[in-house]
Amino acid sequence: MPGVQANRPAEAGDLQEEYARVRALSEALVEPLSEADATLQSMEDASPAKWHLAHVTWFWETFLLRDHGNGYQLYDDDWPFVFNSYYEAEGERIARFSRGMLSRPTLQDLLSWRAHVDEAMQQLLDREELRPLIELGFAHEQQHQELLLTDIKHALFQNPLGPAMWDTTPAARKQADDWYEHPGGIARIGHQADGFAFDNEGPAHRALLEPFALSSRLVTNGEWAEFIADGGYETAALWLSDGWGWVQEKKIGAPSYWRGQQHFTHGGWQDRNPDAPVTHISYYEADAFATWAGRRLPTEFEWEAIARGQEGELAAHDPSGGNQLDDASPPLPIGSDGLFGDCWQFTRSGYLPYPRFRPAEGAVGEYNGKFMSGQFVLKGASCATSRGHSRASYRNFFYPHQRWQFTGLRLAKDL
Amino acid sequence: MPGVQANRPAEAGDLQEEYARVRALSEALVEPLSEADATLQSMEDASPAKWHLAHVTWFWETFLLRDHGNGYQLYDDDWPFVFNSYYEAEGERIARFSRGMLSRPTLQDLLSWRAHVDEAMQQLLDREELRPLIELGFAHEQQHQELLLTDIKHALFQNPLGPAMWDTTPAARKQADDWYEHPGGIARIGHQADGFAFDNEGPAHRALLEPFALSSRLVTNGEWAEFIADGGYETAALWLSDGWGWVQEKKIGAPSYWRGQQHFTHGGWQDRNPDAPVTHISYYEADAFATWAGRRLPTEFEWEAIARGQEGELAAHDPSGGNQLDDASPPLPIGSDGLFGDCWQFTRSGYLPYPRFRPAEGAVGEYNGKFMSGQFVLKGASCATSRGHSRASYRNFFYPHQRWQFTGLRLAKDL
Amino acid sequence: MPGVQANRPAEAGDLQEEYARVRALSEALVEPLSEADATLQSMEDASPAKWHLAHVTWFWETFLLRDHGNGYQLYDDDWPFVFNSYYEAEGERIARFSRGMLSRPTLQDLLSWRAHVDEAMQQLLDREELRPLIELGFAHEQQHQELLLTDIKHALFQNPLGPAMWDTTPAARKQADDWYEHPGGIARIGHQADGFAFDNEGPAHRALLEPFALSSRLVTNGEWAEFIADGGYETAALWLSDGWGWVQEKKIGAPSYWRGQQHFTHGGWQDRNPDAPVTHISYYEADAFATWAGRRLPTEFEWEAIARGQEGELAAHDPSGGNQLDDASPPLPIGSDGLFGDCWQFTRSGYLPYPRFRPAEGAVGEYNGKFMSGQFVLKGASCATSRGHSRASYRNFFYPHQRWQFTGLRLAKDL
Amino acid sequence: MPGVQANRPAEAGDLQEEYARVRALSEALVEPLSEADATLQSMEDASPAKWHLAHVTWFWETFLLRDHGNGYQLYDDDWPFVFNSYYEAEGERIARFSRGMLSRPTLQDLLSWRAHVDEAMQQLLDREELRPLIELGFAHEQQHQELLLTDIKHALFQNPLGPAMWDTTPAARKQADDWYEHPGGIARIGHQADGFAFDNEGPAHRALLEPFALSSRLVTNGEWAEFIADGGYETAALWLSDGWGWVQEKKIGAPSYWRGQQHFTHGGWQDRNPDAPVTHISYYEADAFATWAGRRLPTEFEWEAIARGQEGELAAHDPSGGNQLDDASPPLPIGSDGLFGDCWQFTRSGYLPYPRFRPAEGAVGEYNGKFMSGQFVLKGASCATSRGHSRASYRNFFYPHQRWQFTGLRLAKDL
Repeated sequence: MPGVQANRPAEAGDLQEEYARVRALSEALVEPLSEADATLQSMEDASPAKWHLAHVTWFWETFLLRDHGNGYQLYDDDWPFVFNSYYEAEGERIARFSRGMLSRPTLQDLLSWRAHVDEAMQQLLDREELRPLIELGFAHEQQHQELLLTDIKHALFQNPLGPAMWDTTPAARKQADDWYEHPGGIARIGHQADGFAFDNEGPAHRALLEPFALSSRLVTNGEWAEFIADGGYETAALWLSDGWGWVQEKKIGAPSYWRGQQHFTHGGWQDRNPDAPVTHISYYEADAFATWAGRRLPTEFEWEAIARGQEGELAAHDPSGGNQLDDASPPLPIGSDGLFGDCWQFTRSGYLPYPRFRPAEGAVGEYNGKFMSGQFVLKGASCATSRGHSRASYRNFFYPHQRWQFTGLRLAKDL
Repeated sequence: MPGVQANRPAEAGDLQEEYARVRALSEALVEPLSEADATLQSMEDASPAKWHLAHVTWFWETFLLRDHGNGYQLYDDDWPFVFNSYYEAEGERIARFSRGMLSRPTLQDLLSWRAHVDEAMQQLLDREELRPLIELGFAHEQQHQELLLTDIKHALFQNPLGPAMWDTTPAARKQADDWYEHPGGIARIGHQADGFAFDNEGPAHRALLEPFALSSRLVTNGEWAEFIADGGYETAALWLSDGWGWVQEKKIGAPSYWRGQQHFTHGGWQDRNPDAPVTHISYYEADAFATWAGRRLPTEFEWEAIARGQEGELAAHDPSGGNQLDDASPPLPIGSDGLFGDCWQFTRSGYLPYPRFRPAEGAVGEYNGKFMSGQFVLKGASCATSRGHSRASYRNFFYPHQRWQFTGLRLAKDL
Repeated sequence: MPGVQANRPAEAGDLQEEYARVRALSEALVEPLSEADATLQSMEDASPAKWHLAHVTWFWETFLLRDHGNGYQLYDDDWPFVFNSYYEAEGERIARFSRGMLSRPTLQDLLSWRAHVDEAMQQLLDREELRPLIELGFAHEQQHQELLLTDIKHALFQNPLGPAMWDTTPAARKQADDWYEHPGGIARIGHQADGFAFDNEGPAHRALLEPFALSSRLVTNGEWAEFIADGGYETAALWLSDGWGWVQEKKIGAPSYWRGQQHFTHGGWQDRNPDAPVTHISYYEADAFATWAGRRLPTEFEWEAIARGQEGELAAHDPSGGNQLDDASPPLPIGSDGLFGDCWQFTRSGYLPYPRFRPAEGAVGEYNGKFMSGQFVLKGASCATSRGHSRASYRNFFYPHQRWQFTGLRLAKDL
Repeated sequence: MPGVQANRPAEAGDLQEEYARVRALSEALVEPLSEADATLQSMEDASPAKWHLAHVTWFWETFLLRDHGNGYQLYDDDWPFVFNSYYEAEGERIARFSRGMLSRPTLQDLLSWRAHVDEAMQQLLDREELRPLIELGFAHEQQHQELLLTDIKHALFQNPLGPAMWDTTPAARKQADDWYEHPGGIARIGHQADGFAFDNEGPAHRALLEPFALSSRLVTNGEWAEFIADGGYETAALWLSDGWGWVQEKKIGAPSYWRGQQHFTHGGWQDRNPDAPVTHISYYEADAFATWAGRRLPTEFEWEAIARGQEGELAAHDPSGGNQLDDASPPLPIGSDGLFGDCWQFTRSGYLPYPRFRPAEGAVGEYNGKFMSGQFVLKGASCATSRGHSRASYRNFFYPHQRWQFTGLRLAKDL
């Protein structure tokens, strides 16, 4: 089972409320979109907004209602084929890059399906034995809320007319510039049985650290402009070999979404604020920048050790403080205090199993473990991450060339 | 100048009426589509329905209103970039496969633009010196009506749910099985100054023919099933070398849209009628079938000679008789009498310039001439071709692997 | 049967002599090459020199010795798989781009095979009924001599060290600048039963021509430099649509093998002579140049009509005059008199079947007919074409983007 | 500096002798190859044998003779461009997949160059301050000896005639089947200053281990056949997501070089011995097998801890015992005792920098660090690895899909 519940109140009521809140936010996020906007798929990595709405509903219908719903009938027998994402155990599914061809079912069809599933789910939300699965459903839908936001941004960006999804008034503040020092030693790593977590966050274990320091702030747009001005993208010596190949082949010369002094946002083209954290960079870029700056990226263990504090059990850095997704308003990195929010932060740790890791049984076991090759761990949370979804043990992961997420970096150094 | 007007009545009124008719049909064709349907682009060869609506409007706005419209102001300065198709002389344009990312402008925006252009066009429709350009505009918009129909068919086909655009009751009759014989000799070829024509249909000239016969009917679904049953797609000796490579690489084993005993239509999945003409085949398939049948494809000159009759000036085969596009109802090949209608018919003639051919001056000169390499000529007209758009000299052209149009074949033999 | 013999002396002796001559030239051409040179395959279109030596031997062994050789045993049962080129009827064969992996058999092995086959062939060279097939064997081996030369040029060109295969002293003279005029009318086209020809050169038939003129000379390097200086490669309006796409995608800005004021030859890097005919251009380039020059490419029928002269039967332009392949010396275009030699000349005619064309029965029937889609006809002969191999009806053919052969152009105009 | 020397005898004489030995082995390895064999490049990952001979010589000429050789003149100024591999700091170089076009310089030219460099190197071999660089040169040349062997195997395999490089009499013995247990705790990891090592093996540091056991033997061909028979390659649940995609796309169903009951070796096609270690598998396959077997792959730290033994300083498992490359005889995995030899063993550790890792200054600093993304660490040594080149801290690394090296696996389990 991917997650366990410990210190949260055990009343059924909280699941009812959370279910309503999570489901409503998904729908609120597509409200500014037209039916056509919501159908766009701009690349294989991204999915249409409508598809996200449907896929999370498929998850509830399949793993909760079908498996535990006492004679529940599928709303439409043909839909699992089109709205399954990657669960091989759940059978054949549509080729990934064909999701953008799903003009039907209509958005209205999908909202009706959602209402139907929500209605049926009411019977299951007070079954305590299903709590782990239901919490997984929340986490899953929240992950797709973040993807929905980054995918639609990527899709709207393809349009030369530069359409905006929301009106925005971007703001940014300078973050305090300091170092969090750590003396090294044995750190507690991974999910410590203090609430829901994905299977890949456990088992809890220990890691041995050397003395190091982690920056108290994120690298900014202004610093990135200096890196560019200093020839960062033309200096092979700064780059990993694969990164240099990527820069050459794709003719990369700036973070994604940059054009002149502007960058593309959910509010259309906007002037970049030099104090705001840089985002939409790849691992290759993050690593090259750190080399250029004479620093390095932290490991995931270092990052987590700072987030936990020396006691390990208390959250030294509160995940609830930063700039994250609270409601259907435009996600913008603005310079939060603390380690969480604004953007995901690359670590130099490969996304690999923790000691004694075992995937969950059954289809939900495909959730995380099967992606453990070729990717890097990111820590923290972005401005598009649901607030409650953030925690010190969270392991996000992407391939080193991907950058359509709100990805940035926080430097580390040896002590 | 791509077309000249000769035997049509010269009153301005006919242009007003034709303009209204052509423009209205375009809009009627998208009526069964949702905004999302109309935004889909399923492959680089195809365009979204919305884009077709916009592109033809761009044509009127650019080549009529902007060039001849007495101070006409562009409706939106940014739109030419996104709605120009391939006219290099008209400047930069969006990458072809990005048309499917244009969720904005909305369908409603485009319909407003259309209304605005229609209003402005009223002033130009009685200017006799613009008649050739206006008739080119009709022909252009009619071509895009056909593409709109074939493109949306291809897009809906991608959806595993098999959505229908219209209700249909398909019917087919057996065509008479006979041969039109021709004794050979010098035939009159090309546009004979008897109405509008594209530049590539002229100049009128003569061609020397050997005695031959052309079938009075199209090859049918039933015959194609025999070809398949006889191992047609597995027999290298029947195929052109490029065709055999294409069959192997793309794993081709049937016409496009076939699945079991059904095929995909604008009315969704339907049982195939064995008497109906086969459609959605490539040149490679047409050629292989003809070889298998012990026949051959006609040349474009042979086809035209039969269509004209021995006198050359009289239309022996009336282009107005067959099954073509009259209104916004589902295009279906059903077995027409005569040479026109149901499907475009492959010839073995390369799409190349006629003697003394010169492209028109200016941007409209890019209309046809620049495509004269690597393609084959098709004659006739399909069930998706506007009726008035058909004539004996018409030269349609596609690459030998393309088959998303209503393409079929009519056999020929030497005498 | 691909060719018939008419006016050549019927003694067996001439075949003995010709056999010895043709076979010896193939071996002489590889003499300047090392074993490693002869193994190189630089692209899918090209083959290793060793492979050419082996493939032509496979042809003699298969279609003569095996089929007619009275109990002849194959030299090695495994070799047909690796040395068959594209004859589907002859079974499976090695993937085309794997020919460059055939370090074994060694060159010495292949020369031993050649000697073995030559020995066995002596018994067949006086069998008059095999004459057509033997003459096809000569023509086939001569075609591969030309390919051997163009393929090894392409392979050596890949080497940054620019190795030379021969010492050369290039020379070029200015060709007379005039026009051959033709009044139009019916011309005799195709093989007129006056010696060996490939199946695609027949049947003899008539074509109707409009008045035109063909240049007495080839376009030169100097003229091509003017085309470049005038922005030829940057001017979309000059290009076919596919050609413009090719120029953009492949970043084409000059003929193949050009670098600064030099070009790569069988003698390594050499200064270009402005008076020498331009070579190694694609159809797209030839067509764009003709458009830029205000001329056009001839049709294959126009070219042949000039080559034959008005009488049709007499060779007005002697194919034996120009600069062609006589012995194992470096092929260099230098400006021949007459229509033949120096380089193949693009026509605007698609490579398509002549009226009543039927491929030969059996595997040799795969020789030409199955390539009749997507290619253009070239006429004449190049400096790498065996002299006896040239004739007015010869139809060479390549795809419009290919340019590793000695390809050039001769302009035409309407009268 | 990538390596340091500690406990080896400091006399100059040992370098002289080692230099002669290493250089001679490279040349002995190409002796069974023809010039054409030695020129083949079968894929981008592989290089021609001749290129390896030249590249290692370029290394000595560049980093020793040019940088430290007192006025040494380059043998040929054009050669660095073609024989540099990936050292960006050393300037432009030939595109990787063009190495197979280097028929010139000839093998004899390269051997002359080698002799020239060997002669010049004599002056430097007694300069103690160059010892680290010279030892790096040995290690570098030995790595290329291994690559030469695996690359030529891959090239000869492309030939349908299945040529052999050596006569072989393969043999295999069953390895003892047991587990090496480890109680967990802090292990010493990385190069412990006991001889030469690459920069990526350091700095020495500590890692925290959980209790585990490592198999005393490698997985065999026989076990792999069971995996196949049990549907291993058709069972999505066993595979990493990227691995499953790779299996589907490349139609993988067995280790590389397998065909029926045989596999391709340096001695041509041979019957597989079920007791011999399986080789030529990818990380994806190794991981899937371990999952199928109910085990897992070890981490690089676990593997090293077993190799060192509990004391850390003493080599519990002697790297000099197994089946490795001693002379120019065919490399064959036969079932060695101990951890080293036969094949490289995949770990589940990403190839990433050790704490406080810094690449060496200058061009040699490009040796290892810049490859630290997307690859996995392999431990041990293969039958093609020079014996002296093996040590507990050695970190080999490949992408998870690569399998043309002698790669296999040794299972681990938690205790």
